[in-house]
Amino acid sequence: MKNTDKYEKVIELGRRRGFFWPSYEIYGGAGGFLDFGPAGVALKRKIENKWRDFFLKRHGFLEIETPIITPEKIFRASGHVEHFKDPMIECKICKRVFRADHLLRDLGVKNTESMTLTELRNEFETRGTVCPECGGQLLEPRHMQTMFQTTIGPYTEAIAYGRPEAAQGIFVNFRRLFEVAREQFPIGVGQVGHALRNEISPRQGPIRLREFTIMEFEFFFDPEEPQCPLLKDVQDVEVRVIPIQSRKEKSEEPLQMSLRDAVDRKVILVEWMAYFMGLSQQFIGELGIPQDKQRFLEKLPSERAHYSAQTFDQEIYLDRWGWTEISGHAYRTSYDLSRHMDQSGVDNRVFRPYPRPVEVEEKRLVPDVDAIRKTFGDDFPKVMELVGTVDQGLLEDALTKKGSYEIDGFTITQNHVKAKTLKRKETGKRIVPHVVEPSFGADRLVYSAMEYAYSIKEDRVVLGLPKDIAPFQVVVLPLLKKSDLVEKANKIYRMLLEAKIDTYCDEVGSIGRRYARADEIGVPLAVTVDYETLTDGTLTVRHRDTWKQVRIGQTNLISHTWDFFDSK
Amino acid sequence: MKNTDKYEKVIELGRRRGFFWPSYEIYGGAGGFLDFGPAGVALKRKIENKWRDFFLKRHGFLEIETPIITPEKIFRASGHVEHFKDPMIECKICKRVFRADHLLRDLGVKNTESMTLTELRNEFETRGTVCPECGGQLLEPRHMQTMFQTTIGPYTEAIAYGRPEAAQGIFVNFRRLFEVAREQFPIGVGQVGHALRNEISPRQGPIRLREFTIMEFEFFFDPEEPQCPLLKDVQDVEVRVIPIQSRKEKSEEPLQMSLRDAVDRKVILVEWMAYFMGLSQQFIGELGIPQDKQRFLEKLPSERAHYSAQTFDQEIYLDRWGWTEISGHAYRTSYDLSRHMDQSGVDNRVFRPYPRPVEVEEKRLVPDVDAIRKTFGDDFPKVMELVGTVDQGLLEDALTKKGSYEIDGFTITQNHVKAKTLKRKETGKRIVPHVVEPSFGADRLVYSAMEYAYSIKEDRVVLGLPKDIAPFQVVVLPLLKKSDLVEKANKIYRMLLEAKIDTYCDEVGSIGRRYARADEIGVPLAVTVDYETLTDGTLTVRHRDTWKQVRIGQTNLISHTWDFFDSK
Repeated sequence: MKNTDKYEKVIELGRRRGFFWPSYEIYGGAGGFLDFGPAGVALKRKIENKWRDFFLKRHGFLEIETPIITPEKIFRASGHVEHFKDPMIECKICKRVFRADHLLRDLGVKNTESMTLTELRNEFETRGTVCPECGGQLLEPRHMQTMFQTTIGPYTEAIAYGRPEAAQGIFVNFRRLFEVAREQFPIGVGQVGHALRNEISPRQGPIRLREFTIMEFEFFFDPEEPQCPLLKDVQDVEVRVIPIQSRKEKSEEPLQMSLRDAVDRKVILVEWMAYFMGLSQQFIGELGIPQDKQRFLEKLPSERAHYSAQTFDQEIYLDRWGWTEISGHAYRTSYDLSRHMDQSGVDNRVFRPYPRPVEVEEKRLVPDVDAIRKTFGDDFPKVMELVGTVDQGLLEDALTKKGSYEIDGFTITQNHVKAKTLKRKETGKRIVPHVVEPSFGADRLVYSAMEYAYSIKEDRVVLGLPKDIAPFQVVVLPLLKKSDLVEKANKIYRMLLEAKIDTYCDEVGSIGRRYARADEIGVPLAVTVDYETLTDGTLTVRHRDTWKQVRIGQTNLISHTWDFFDSK
Repeated sequence: MKNTDKYEKVIELGRRRGFFWPSYEIYGGAGGFLDFGPAGVALKRKIENKWRDFFLKRHGFLEIETPIITPEKIFRASGHVEHFKDPMIECKICKRVFRADHLLRDLGVKNTESMTLTELRNEFETRGTVCPECGGQLLEPRHMQTMFQTTIGPYTEAIAYGRPEAAQGIFVNFRRLFEVAREQFPIGVGQVGHALRNEISPRQGPIRLREFTIMEFEFFFDPEEPQCPLLKDVQDVEVRVIPIQSRKEKSEEPLQMSLRDAVDRKVILVEWMAYFMGLSQQFIGELGIPQDKQRFLEKLPSERAHYSAQTFDQEIYLDRWGWTEISGHAYRTSYDLSRHMDQSGVDNRVFRPYPRPVEVEEKRLVPDVDAIRKTFGDDFPKVMELVGTVDQGLLEDALTKKGSYEIDGFTITQNHVKAKTLKRKETGKRIVPHVVEPSFGADRLVYSAMEYAYSIKEDRVVLGLPKDIAPFQVVVLPLLKKSDLVEKANKIYRMLLEAKIDTYCDEVGSIGRRYARADEIGVPLAVTVDYETLTDGTLTVRHRDTWKQVRIGQTNLISHTWDFFDSK
């Protein structure tokens, strides 16, 4: 049984080869925190950069970086203080706390994520569930705020939270970013950085972390012009979708359809969202996870975050965890920008010019010159101006309801004004942009790419990562740990560094063990420096995937490496 | 006056051109937090990568990434819970809180950083200082913990802190990292990531932040073999140092000396520290800050962090802030590794083989066969074994003090053992490594590089950043916002991206305004696509520093760009 669990194997490899391991090990650990070692940092950074290339750079989208510590008012405005919480349940006897919905899910109950506290309580009661740790009685389920809370500076009332998403850092900056983008529209803004979620009891290693690296971007568009001109590039791409409708009919069988179809059949509500889902499928595919191990699960309204009008979880199949969320695609509408507009008073609307100005008719109450002159005599010019500039709504309202309106001590009645239809040119309108948001967790991608790359060849582990995300491109190996070979290897190492090739040296152990180690780290090319190198300048290049070795001149090493990594 | 303050100008430019601005602006801001816009993110990342090249990669050092949230026991072990605090003083009337030593410093008092609470109180009393905000009476100065505090999970007793430095994430992993490095020694381990310091009242914009990006590495070496073989590469480099001795003599005048001299004269206690200080000076120089605007200030014992036996602040001269710390070089000795060894029980010692095994003599109490046989009869073999394997210290101690020792019910007396001198081969020793730590703040470097790059040419701002850290290498400009030109510009943009050149497009405004904008962002090359490009494939390349334009074929653009950036 244990032998067939890839999770154990990848975790063990991760630890042994310096990819990742649980944080604070020497103090017995702390659940939900992960350390990345040298290979893990390198792999994670490659994935982050690939994400940037894929989603930001090719579209000319912006990238920003904002703090993790966030004052409470931002998360009050965004709705997180109210909504970002999970159901927990505590044992009366041993005082241990569990995540209520996960406890039931592990007992085989379906759709626990969308249950209310009452529904959860009823389930626990019906089943007579007891504490899984000590068998004690469980208390009533209740909600726990799952943001890390702290205070800023010396004032205890200055409450702040660790951000659970990078998105708010983008939303609160929308106005400024729109200016930086010189009012180009639509725009996308992304952010990569740590995010914090104070999970109740995370138990899935790198899959569910309390601190993780989020890669998120917000795409702002005009809801009245929702067409995505880029969709045509991917419209024939087939995706596997489980829409709400299927789930309501109790089917988890994915429907296969093209992105175009998904939009036309209103399975995906927004064209831009469909486009980014297509890109995400390709992105995950290029991390080595095939299409048939991917699917998009539409979240039920009760499962969706509070800001979302439609959400798809992109899921992949993991050996131990089954279908696992790898990215979230949320249609956040104008929710966040509107909330911040309300709460901060800053105008988040965008002026959208019409292709050509349109003439609009407008009914206005304009001052009646004769009547005003007659009533107000010498004050006539002043009253004319007051009536001409008064708020139309207030004036109309007062005249209708009370028959008169007071301005600066002058009483205006119905006969002082005339209704008139004015024509006005409108050059555009102000809209609050809508938002679609694709969101990835980098840590989970590191683990998933490793699980799919993990393979056994002649009893040895080879981590067959796609070569463009392999943590290192080349390892340099002096055949023996002799000073002349080590010195030469160091020269080769520096030469590769100069050429911006990711590389490291390994001098310890037999050459066979070092090849095996490089295979486990997933290094595509191993370069061996031997005595021939010192005499005739040739090197051995060994390829991870074929185990074939070729002998080349050291002056060709860089072009050999470039060619290899440029080839498909 | 205001016109001469570069700080204002850089801050204004930072905001206008999307480098950085205060966080949470739309909610009135929160002191000590900074947002990086697209140009700032790009510049910061270039500086981080340059730091990696400079300090980690060229030495083959490791890079790791560990969490920000850190359980309390780690910072108890490291001494931070006890020592990481600042003196604060509160106004009795308006309740505002100030950093006590900074308040006095701003009043012209010297060396306030090293004052005790009593000394601070005496200073306030002598001067009759009142609240600078409301004139109210100030309360007694006291200490504030300057780590952000939170709790992990649902248990309120699970206290944790935001890390104020990245170092502890390295120290607690030393054992594992040493294995990952296959027990190569000495080793260096670095980390780049956010760190948090809950400053009492930060008021220096990007210079003093509550959340910032730290770039830190720990170099572990054998204190009995402290020689740095790399020092010879930089030993003639001159540095400007203000040692403690000068400060005690009330002189802040730097002494100019070579690194070799600084080591020989014991101004710098550790060779490796001198080496890294030399590198740091070069690194800061390559960010555009000349040597005569740099100096190293040795911290007084009372100013040093609790873990440090010697500290130098590398300072640079900033227009508004004067001499400002830009990096810290601390000799942390074995302090951290020893503390974690004590507190966690994990052995952080490193085995250091001798060049050849040495013979050591050891006095041992060995069992006396005849005496034991005589006393214990049939139990003789058992007692022989017990005496032969007993803890020597305990046995000797008991025999000396009590005349006998009990093992498993047998009473051993002096006559059952004989003192014997044994010879033993020792192949090496176990040592707790010592550590030197260079530590940089990336945000401060972004600001400082911008201040030194800020220049005026013919009434226009040019941000003359060194070309290898310029946020973008090339901007692509369609001459006019016409679809054929924009489309062509986009093709050029993608071609540059493919070649891993950092680039963006700018389509808004006259070509002159766009050149000016690119100069303000510090983009070294601007490529203009015009109607000739469409017909004959030529482009204009304009250089930021000369404002000269050259016309080249688009097929030569990439090699032109590469050549430009490769040249000195």
